[in-house]
Amino acid sequence: MTGLSPFAGRIIWALKLKGVEFESVEEDLTNKSDLLLQSNPVHQKIPVLIHNGKPVSESLVIMEYIDEVWNQTCPLLPADPHQRALTRFWAKFVDEKVTSIELNFVLLKAFASMWSALQMRGKEGGEAALEEAHENLRILEKELEGKKFFGGESIGLVDVTFGSFAKLLDVLDEVMGSDKKMIDEDKFPLMGKWKEQLSELAVVKSCLPPADKLAAAVQARRNESAAA
Amino acid sequence: MTGLSPFAGRIIWALKLKGVEFESVEEDLTNKSDLLLQSNPVHQKIPVLIHNGKPVSESLVIMEYIDEVWNQTCPLLPADPHQRALTRFWAKFVDEKVTSIELNFVLLKAFASMWSALQMRGKEGGEAALEEAHENLRILEKELEGKKFFGGESIGLVDVTFGSFAKLLDVLDEVMGSDKKMIDEDKFPLMGKWKEQLSELAVVKSCLPPADKLAAAVQARRNESAAA
Repeated sequence: MTGLSPFAGRIIWALKLKGVEFESVEEDLTNKSDLLLQSNPVHQKIPVLIHNGKPVSESLVIMEYIDEVWNQTCPLLPADPHQRALTRFWAKFVDEKVTSIELNFVLLKAFASMWSALQMRGKEGGEAALEEAHENLRILEKELEGKKFFGGESIGLVDVTFGSFAKLLDVLDEVMGSDKKMIDEDKFPLMGKWKEQLSELAVVKSCLPPADKLAAAVQARRNESAAA
Repeated sequence: MTGLSPFAGRIIWALKLKGVEFESVEEDLTNKSDLLLQSNPVHQKIPVLIHNGKPVSESLVIMEYIDEVWNQTCPLLPADPHQRALTRFWAKFVDEKVTSIELNFVLLKAFASMWSALQMRGKEGGEAALEEAHENLRILEKELEGKKFFGGESIGLVDVTFGSFAKLLDVLDEVMGSDKKMIDEDKFPLMGKWKEQLSELAVVKSCLPPADKLAAAVQARRNESAAA
């Protein structure tokens, strides 16, 4: 189910932006392959990029690697050291505060519960976590002020780091037929515009998460909720 | 009490390794200064590096910034993209799995409890966390095989990221007069050697955490334990 991972999505976006040919290998995370276990023995997680036979793990690390190796087109990091530091700061912020697996899970749970009319209120700190998620989205929204992309006039590291996640949420919204978007565009208008700008890029269009797989995952969760 | 922070320590090590003149401003974290709040409004945490009037936050980000701006001496990152990726991978590993504030707290608590003959066993998952800490140290120990420093023949980003923490633990051992070291050298002999190699560097010698402040912090914790 690696096709659903926004972390794997970052790498696919980055490689496509650079125009690099690659082969994407799906991984069954309930039965990890020897290739994965040997390539990323420490974390045993996707994504892993294998280039010239050498593996690189951790999506932020992989993206910087891609940017350094294929440095002739579409820079993901700017040239100026201070701008580079800000870019790394925000990519880390998105990684730790917005797209972390735990948060992802809370968002999905909250959404699944809206959909199945279950209440999250007060349960397992769900509401506090959701409020924190919104607070972090507000911080990010502010970062988009006066800019087309987080990277400025063109897509950069922060756009890729956050974009693969935002697009996943969009497809989820669609699949679930919700009348309210997970990243609510009334609350986050700049983010709404940013997602439109992203959607106009051919590369991004070619990287949409697979709606059929997402629909199946949603159905599985729905069955779990009904059984609980 | 920023003098006790291994995260601030990383920046001081990095600047000294580069031979950069700097002024260190102490911060009372119970009463944060306007300068800190304005310089790092998102996280409101130390360390922050202010260079040419522009702030940079997050210690890993700051270290890369330092390496890029003062790139003529003592490279913290190697030149080869794959080696750079591995260096970033291990710095991230140390940051997230070994020196994270939460883990720091568990280690200190476990140590304080040994010292005051309180038992951590089964309490608040302390033992499981400590076991995880040891497992992560074992992974790091393996990374030192056949190498003088994590950076190879000379000190690099991973050494700085982990070293400021390891030295803090050493001084803590000393201050507390423990007969067993927090990073047990029987269990982690390569790390023991590595710390010796570090200690031989003049720059590291000049960065030892302040024993008097640590002694006061230990005493405060001792009083807390006695009162509990």
